[in-house]
Amino acid sequence: MKFELDKSIEVLEKTPLILEAFLSGLSENWIHNNEGKNTWSPYDVIGHLIFGEKTDWIVRIQLILSASENKMFEPFDRYAQLNEEQNLPISQLTKKFIELRSENIKVLKSLNISKEDLKLTGIHPELGTVTIAQLIATWTVHDLGHIAQISRVMSKQYKEEVGPWVKYLGTLNK
Amino acid sequence: MKFELDKSIEVLEKTPLILEAFLSGLSENWIHNNEGKNTWSPYDVIGHLIFGEKTDWIVRIQLILSASENKMFEPFDRYAQLNEEQNLPISQLTKKFIELRSENIKVLKSLNISKEDLKLTGIHPELGTVTIAQLIATWTVHDLGHIAQISRVMSKQYKEEVGPWVKYLGTLNK
Repeated sequence: MKFELDKSIEVLEKTPLILEAFLSGLSENWIHNNEGKNTWSPYDVIGHLIFGEKTDWIVRIQLILSASENKMFEPFDRYAQLNEEQNLPISQLTKKFIELRSENIKVLKSLNISKEDLKLTGIHPELGTVTIAQLIATWTVHDLGHIAQISRVMSKQYKEEVGPWVKYLGTLNK
Repeated sequence: MKFELDKSIEVLEKTPLILEAFLSGLSENWIHNNEGKNTWSPYDVIGHLIFGEKTDWIVRIQLILSASENKMFEPFDRYAQLNEEQNLPISQLTKKFIELRSENIKVLKSLNISKEDLKLTGIHPELGTVTIAQLIATWTVHDLGHIAQISRVMSKQYKEEVGPWVKYLGTLNK
């Protein structure tokens, strides 16, 4: 698929619905267990997504579109959520993400990004020059990757419970 | 996590909601593109899940609990959906899955499977002896694996569109 803004927004708008369907009302073990030391639980993933909404995607798009001469992005702290208060119920954390995403989609649409604008560039501190199109494509893929991660992490909680089926189940062997 | 029937049902009940949230109203490309030759699109995955509801999980549980002396499972055709009519809109396919799953959860609950029943066994044609607990754990993990797959397959459609971010995005490198 070639990048299209509308098709990216389709996915970006779905992520909150998917996460809500996924995580609301689940037992604590499904929410808080991870894949082992220094890995993330579904709870941690939602925290990470919240930080992205606050400090990463839209902020960077706005910087690229701004009159500022300095187009260097602030580095994104991929572990910021681990320093946050960890006692918020998952329902509140998910609600927070839903609100932030909804607000950011509104901003994204209000920017009326044209096909020409999609080629405008910023500077990623590690990756160098990137376009708005690449940034929005990455936002989309990043969402999908973390949905896949939540699924995988949850599936692994039953790794010892599936008996001989373990070898047929791809997510248990990653 | 140790296997618990209730915690498995939590996930099994969520899968239809997650898939509905994921796939309803998406553009055809997101639904029908796959990862390359002999791989599945999200559309194919839903077809596969439908066959599981019809011929695999509950059928096998019922066989184990039945008075039948022959506890050998029928082999499950993991590619059956590829021989089916491929023109049903995804919304109808998803609806079909939701109905079948809802019906199967009702059956599962109505079986009143006890802790002792969970240890009862059937014979998998390739894997040998398996318990009801292992079967239900596998059903749960199988759902989560296919949700992860749908996410991964969709994310890959943008592999060429993310530019230098490709190396940060795990699902693009699987």
